[in-house]
Amino acid sequence: MNKIYLDNNATTKVDPRVMDKMAPFFVEKYGNPNSLHGFGTETHPAMAEALNSLYAGINASDDSDILVTSCGTESNNTVLKGIFIDYILKGEKKHLITSQIEHPAIRNTCEFLESIGAEVTYLPVNDDGIVTPEILKKHLRRGETALVSIMWANNETGLINPVKDLALAAHEYGALFHTDAVQALGKIKVDVQDTDVDFLTFSGHKFHGPKGVGGLYIKEGLKLTPFFHGGEQMGRKRAGTVNVPLMVGMGYALDLAVKALDYENKEIRRLRDKLEDAIMSIKDTIVIGKRELRTPNTILVSFKGIEGEAFLWDLNWNGIAASTGSACSSEDLEADATFQAMHVDADLSHTGVRFSLSRFTTEEEIDRAIEVIKKTVERLRSISSTYR
Amino acid sequence: MNKIYLDNNATTKVDPRVMDKMAPFFVEKYGNPNSLHGFGTETHPAMAEALNSLYAGINASDDSDILVTSCGTESNNTVLKGIFIDYILKGEKKHLITSQIEHPAIRNTCEFLESIGAEVTYLPVNDDGIVTPEILKKHLRRGETALVSIMWANNETGLINPVKDLALAAHEYGALFHTDAVQALGKIKVDVQDTDVDFLTFSGHKFHGPKGVGGLYIKEGLKLTPFFHGGEQMGRKRAGTVNVPLMVGMGYALDLAVKALDYENKEIRRLRDKLEDAIMSIKDTIVIGKRELRTPNTILVSFKGIEGEAFLWDLNWNGIAASTGSACSSEDLEADATFQAMHVDADLSHTGVRFSLSRFTTEEEIDRAIEVIKKTVERLRSISSTYR
Repeated sequence: MNKIYLDNNATTKVDPRVMDKMAPFFVEKYGNPNSLHGFGTETHPAMAEALNSLYAGINASDDSDILVTSCGTESNNTVLKGIFIDYILKGEKKHLITSQIEHPAIRNTCEFLESIGAEVTYLPVNDDGIVTPEILKKHLRRGETALVSIMWANNETGLINPVKDLALAAHEYGALFHTDAVQALGKIKVDVQDTDVDFLTFSGHKFHGPKGVGGLYIKEGLKLTPFFHGGEQMGRKRAGTVNVPLMVGMGYALDLAVKALDYENKEIRRLRDKLEDAIMSIKDTIVIGKRELRTPNTILVSFKGIEGEAFLWDLNWNGIAASTGSACSSEDLEADATFQAMHVDADLSHTGVRFSLSRFTTEEEIDRAIEVIKKTVERLRSISSTYR
Repeated sequence: MNKIYLDNNATTKVDPRVMDKMAPFFVEKYGNPNSLHGFGTETHPAMAEALNSLYAGINASDDSDILVTSCGTESNNTVLKGIFIDYILKGEKKHLITSQIEHPAIRNTCEFLESIGAEVTYLPVNDDGIVTPEILKKHLRRGETALVSIMWANNETGLINPVKDLALAAHEYGALFHTDAVQALGKIKVDVQDTDVDFLTFSGHKFHGPKGVGGLYIKEGLKLTPFFHGGEQMGRKRAGTVNVPLMVGMGYALDLAVKALDYENKEIRRLRDKLEDAIMSIKDTIVIGKRELRTPNTILVSFKGIEGEAFLWDLNWNGIAASTGSACSSEDLEADATFQAMHVDADLSHTGVRFSLSRFTTEEEIDRAIEVIKKTVERLRSISSTYR
């Protein structure tokens, strides 16, 4: 039985073309790019090409910075803790704004910063599950709010926030704007000149690049205390030996992902919609968030009367990989924060199952998934104590 | 012409066996280990094996922690900034001690922490270039010193500090002890039960593992505020999707490096000594640090009248890769900090050239290097304006 992977919001398979591109930089072209000799300098063309792909992939201006980090979590920590040091620790400003639906890399970092002196507002979402500029404006404080950090697309629901207008609102009140675009880049168009954000986080392994490498866009002219202090790599903005193979891999992966955006938005969307239509045809089933407000690859569904985890086990037994939500908190059995923020009925808070597709997902896989899901719902409801 | 790599303190080639071991985890076994499905759980045995190799490699007790980080710089930042938050920001203690010969990942982090309120002492070295317990004890302040951070082996000279006695001294005064063992692990025996350190940093790419992955040992019973806040990976002690392939690679690399320690200390030492003897036979040449006090693979040499960089260019032209010192500051033309700390004549402060061998270095390579070095010294001195 071929296994079917429908958990691409947790992580993705490295595209074999990406693997081929980065492989030589492990064993053969292994020099430290900061070294002056040929082993170091022979890595430079590939690094320049990768950096070009990153700049092109988000349409960053030449004068902006893109720091290559070790992951999205690092990028998010870099922004929040940098702003804390630059503004809050210095006593210049004291307030941060984020939302109730952020990834733990934002939410838990904000909670930590609260414990050492920051004041943080966690914005609610509207009935659609979206953070709107109207909600944001109610909480912005001129001269006090240092930073607003709202994710571009949610990891669990796929719901897309109006980042362009949120950034405008933040700027109107003199606050900087950061967006965690980990779940947006490679799925929808991300253009940092059209959408005027100050900081943007992304992660290679969410768009068929390798794990262990991410990026942080910093708009031109902005300064931010580094998160990694140390050597003089990246213009002293992010220390640590540059990870050549993974940087090369992420650059090429983004290049391929951007080229596949049309396919993602037509073909993957079609397959996702097919799966979603089939799921919606099962009675007592709710899909969270309007379809047109979501990334093209994601479905978060609640099957009334079925525990999400029980459902996953059955699916896994049948060779299908899905998720109860964020893999980053799958050890945690608390009610899903996104469900809570969206005021989803408490009865349903343990029933969420997320399916997330990628460009490697095939129609055959979706057809088999539909078949298995239908049977699984039927079986589990037949033995459910809460479903009647 | 085959190129000869004598810059293994900057970075090392990934051992092809390590590459083979980690390769399947990019394209095939790509699941997120925190996921509940088979794609996630199939990564667990290899991760457990890697973790076992890391614990065995430094003889860590079962109850201690080894966090897999993205590099040595991250591990160092984790300790210094964690201690700053846990002790200094809270007002419990105020003082940190490090040395004048640390890697920038320590030195620059300490300077940053000074800028936000820490008091830092940078210990001098003795005539041998070593930080001694006697020097340390003069600066330890009971009830005030939170942490002492002294590197195990120096990246530029290879000089080994008496970490066991330094840790004892720190503990005697109620301070915690951290060592940056990036240049020690894989070159000499590192045993955290024999040498009672509280925190120890290491980096995969210094012992033929991949770049972009490192480790932080934390002694059992110790708590440290996390550096990466976010998801619940690694018992909430280090957030971020676990980098399965690189973790697997580092574990196996350490396993191989520990098994090769005898070879390193006999055969690599023999080749290093052969190279060093040949270099010392050139007149007006100084090797920094007594041979018996250094790691077996490193030579830092000063050829009077020759700029280090000019020398490197000539070597590189002849296919030999060496370094002027730390690759992490090769963009920086300031006088070498280690030279300054060791009170090396100011005339010599730009003349340092480092050769660092590895288990992939062959006798044939050393023979050719000797030949090239001798010719290069002769040529450059013949056109030197400062050599007579």
